[in-house]
Amino acid sequence: MKARIHITLKSGVLDPQGKAIQSSLGALGFNGIENVRQGKYIELDISQDDQAKARDQLIQMCEKLLANTVIENYTIDLET
Amino acid sequence: MKARIHITLKSGVLDPQGKAIQSSLGALGFNGIENVRQGKYIELDISQDDQAKARDQLIQMCEKLLANTVIENYTIDLET
Repeated sequence: MKARIHITLKSGVLDPQGKAIQSSLGALGFNGIENVRQGKYIELDISQDDQAKARDQLIQMCEKLLANTVIENYTIDLET
Repeated sequence: MKARIHITLKSGVLDPQGKAIQSSLGALGFNGIENVRQGKYIELDISQDDQAKARDQLIQMCEKLLANTVIENYTIDLET
């Protein structure tokens, strides 16, 4: 089963990467770009056919390794 | 208008970050995880109400700054 995980900074947490992208875009002449936030995107295959079990396992993976839950949120999408 | 951009490595391009995540997950006892690939996820607000024009501008932004099109693919989602 294919899983897609998005890890984003919580709102209110400063995002220097996003700010750098925003100012670089401005320097390149792209105007009207605001609130740039950069996150991580992880794709993986999980050999678990039960969707609920797969989701549980992915939540554990996010909590233990993939996301820093103090400053980051994560969302999990499972492809059926 | 809110835009979401995914930047992923082209298939065939080695992904050391993905490999590192995969082996770390294995070491933590998560089994059956394969083909881990890490990409970037960028959210931004674009002050352009015409959807076609906004998409054109985002394509230019990806080609010129956000993605390395030699090794990366990008997808653009616009929230209407």
